[in-house]
Amino acid sequence: MGRLTLDNINPHVVEAKYAVRGELAVKSEVFRAKLRKGDKDLPFEEVISANIGNPQQLDQKPITFFRQVLSILENPKLLDHEDVLLNTLGYKSDVIARAKWLLDHVGSVGAYSASAGVPTIKESIAKFLEKRDGFAADPAHIYLSGGASSGVNTLLNILCAAPNSGILVPIPQYPLYTASLSVLNATTVPYYLDEAAHWGTSLETIKAAHAQAKAAGTDVRAIVIINPGNPTGASLSEAEVRSVLEFAADEELVVLADEVYQTNVFVGTFHSFRHALLQLQQDDPARYGGVELASLHSISKGMVGECGHRGGYFELVGFDPAVEEQIYKFVSITLCAPVIGQCLVELMVNPPVEGDPSFPLYDEEYGAIFRGLQQRATALYEAFREMEGVECGVPQGSMYLFPTIHLSPRAIAAAEKEGRAADEFYCMRLLDATGVCLVPGSGFGQKEGTFHFRTTFLAPGTEWVGRIKKFHQEFMDEFR
Amino acid sequence: MGRLTLDNINPHVVEAKYAVRGELAVKSEVFRAKLRKGDKDLPFEEVISANIGNPQQLDQKPITFFRQVLSILENPKLLDHEDVLLNTLGYKSDVIARAKWLLDHVGSVGAYSASAGVPTIKESIAKFLEKRDGFAADPAHIYLSGGASSGVNTLLNILCAAPNSGILVPIPQYPLYTASLSVLNATTVPYYLDEAAHWGTSLETIKAAHAQAKAAGTDVRAIVIINPGNPTGASLSEAEVRSVLEFAADEELVVLADEVYQTNVFVGTFHSFRHALLQLQQDDPARYGGVELASLHSISKGMVGECGHRGGYFELVGFDPAVEEQIYKFVSITLCAPVIGQCLVELMVNPPVEGDPSFPLYDEEYGAIFRGLQQRATALYEAFREMEGVECGVPQGSMYLFPTIHLSPRAIAAAEKEGRAADEFYCMRLLDATGVCLVPGSGFGQKEGTFHFRTTFLAPGTEWVGRIKKFHQEFMDEFR
Repeated sequence: MGRLTLDNINPHVVEAKYAVRGELAVKSEVFRAKLRKGDKDLPFEEVISANIGNPQQLDQKPITFFRQVLSILENPKLLDHEDVLLNTLGYKSDVIARAKWLLDHVGSVGAYSASAGVPTIKESIAKFLEKRDGFAADPAHIYLSGGASSGVNTLLNILCAAPNSGILVPIPQYPLYTASLSVLNATTVPYYLDEAAHWGTSLETIKAAHAQAKAAGTDVRAIVIINPGNPTGASLSEAEVRSVLEFAADEELVVLADEVYQTNVFVGTFHSFRHALLQLQQDDPARYGGVELASLHSISKGMVGECGHRGGYFELVGFDPAVEEQIYKFVSITLCAPVIGQCLVELMVNPPVEGDPSFPLYDEEYGAIFRGLQQRATALYEAFREMEGVECGVPQGSMYLFPTIHLSPRAIAAAEKEGRAADEFYCMRLLDATGVCLVPGSGFGQKEGTFHFRTTFLAPGTEWVGRIKKFHQEFMDEFR
Repeated sequence: MGRLTLDNINPHVVEAKYAVRGELAVKSEVFRAKLRKGDKDLPFEEVISANIGNPQQLDQKPITFFRQVLSILENPKLLDHEDVLLNTLGYKSDVIARAKWLLDHVGSVGAYSASAGVPTIKESIAKFLEKRDGFAADPAHIYLSGGASSGVNTLLNILCAAPNSGILVPIPQYPLYTASLSVLNATTVPYYLDEAAHWGTSLETIKAAHAQAKAAGTDVRAIVIINPGNPTGASLSEAEVRSVLEFAADEELVVLADEVYQTNVFVGTFHSFRHALLQLQQDDPARYGGVELASLHSISKGMVGECGHRGGYFELVGFDPAVEEQIYKFVSITLCAPVIGQCLVELMVNPPVEGDPSFPLYDEEYGAIFRGLQQRATALYEAFREMEGVECGVPQGSMYLFPTIHLSPRAIAAAEKEGRAADEFYCMRLLDATGVCLVPGSGFGQKEGTFHFRTTFLAPGTEWVGRIKKFHQEFMDEFR
């Protein structure tokens, strides 16, 4: 057939867009490598990767309890020296007990587990869900995955039956969804979030998007909600969650609830789709009994922040057993999620509790990370409020701020000349000038004519924020 | 659209077959759970999972050097007590040095790495490839993956552009290939391996399969080779490897070399496709200069056996840079391979060498595992030779034997009555009677009218082999 070229490989992969690790991120890594080699030509001394929610690449330290348990799982021979672990190395008795319990149920972490995950770990997740939501969960409907991304990939592979299979996706959104739908040659049905209402969901907007897609012949099958929001940082109210479920029930849509930021909530509390659905099912079984919900969680975010370990799970409510069999087969083809990541899921959902020897340190570390994130979010938010032409909502949740930037017609024209969206142009200039890597709003989708960028608030210190402020003023002056 | 059912979800997922973890495997887990609960009704006391190459689920122990390093990567605070590690816990100085070096280059194993893997680990792989093949490798063309399965998924997603995109796949084959091609709605072009020649490749057979597919309108794009073979255990000669490359060069096919069993070789030596191709390119650049090769390796098999850690890589030769950019984007969508698995890849390709403090133990453990596998393979082979109607080739490589079984017309008829292939019927009866779980040949593909099963030779002891022998005689008598 001739060599592989851009013109003959899978066109759906070529079409997919994934800006979070796109041109800007690649360029930032080139800068980082240059600096490491001692390059003095760049106008900055450090690259700040504010483009990706990668806590432990920046300042976030792993939780001691988790990592002590993992060290024993990796080298069970350490258990031949319990006294040394306890008396010299600072391991508490509950670390040892948990490691023994996991080894007993998991076996070697170097062995494949069952396709959907270690049964005992699924039981721990079920207990966690019951405690969180007040409704029992069945481990049989829980599937461990390699991060939430792999779970989303599984679910979209099942849902997308033909090119006109449509999935309602919030805009702006973490581009995993649109990229995966491109690869699967299915249809993204975008619904805009309401920036004026803290990037909340607007039922009218969702209904309009749905009706328009149906009218165009799209077989709309599911609605994705990311709560707390990525990139928006929004934290949905219970009323918003219920209204989405109401709509899904009436329109017979599967609900995909991406809840990986469920512990990153600064305003109000987290409302899980699972809790809301099971409550509605109790109150009005006729209307809600048939709703299918897949909710996803991961070890990557929150105070855990263990994204390099690739752990997560999804839980299903209301799925047909024959469909679950297909999900089981699909996940079997790639054998199982990383087992050490599965163990971290277990530790996340079943952490030390008051009275456990490891609890005081766990609690201190967890609280310090939470407060640190909140402080940084607030500091960054306040810096943005001082910047000309920048509007930013109060940080509510997740790890991101997503301010609007008002760019001048001259800046937009200069960007066009380079063949770039204006916010991409802005972010590229920012990277070149300061070493700070952001993701332009165009990478997540945004309303025509508006511009944004996403930044994590994971990087420590305020010096880099100062760099952004200085660049921003110069940029605004240049294109005034 | 109504609830999800088998009739409206992705039909290509429904079509996919993956017997390695199918009905038999599920049933074996039910038996295992029953036995764990103290059930005394089953006619056996133990389930033997000979259906899957899962070394550490059975008798294979992890290599001490690897796991000691990993324990430090998971809990770097252990480095505050180097004296205890060295003098009390049995860690050697090279364990500590390697852990420090990895932490220095990887950072936290809880952070995402670059999409294609940690740069330093790619450099170690490049050195390994150069040492193995005698030709330098460029880390820029190496991609870390979550096991080889995830690498295969990436490559097939790139290669399959339309339903008539065809991939030559050996039959029998590990069903990852046919299952993935089903999901991608692309075309499997089967070519039969030559059982009479130790399951080697027959160039005439490949050419005929290729010509037939082309005549039927299939756009054949690549050829998959699994060497050493799964499920066959075949180990290809250099001449066989070269003849495949010759064919690929002439027909402009991408070569996908699945070499995950490269250290599981009992007869002759392993001949890598990369070595053979680079040699041919040196000798005859005009003919071979344009060949595209992707070769895959993993930590799951061999003496490493760390499949639960989901680590692997693929290396590309001769790919268009624009195509590699698409591969990079594709792997970015799922962020990165598990980082602790990446570290295990580094340890696998760069193990202790003579003179290193950890070398004696490493060498002893590695050698013992190799000899143990060879002994078990031989014992199982000899048992099969004594069984009526069973033919089995000498064990050459990988972790499997794949004997032919000659089943009587009465057995075939009884199977048909249950709606099963005869070898599946045989394996189901074997599982019910003995607790030994095999995979029938129909799960891998086989010539019409022939029957086989695949068994790993990982399980310890010979008692379970005796159970198979006894069952087999009774089965033959019953259906004589």
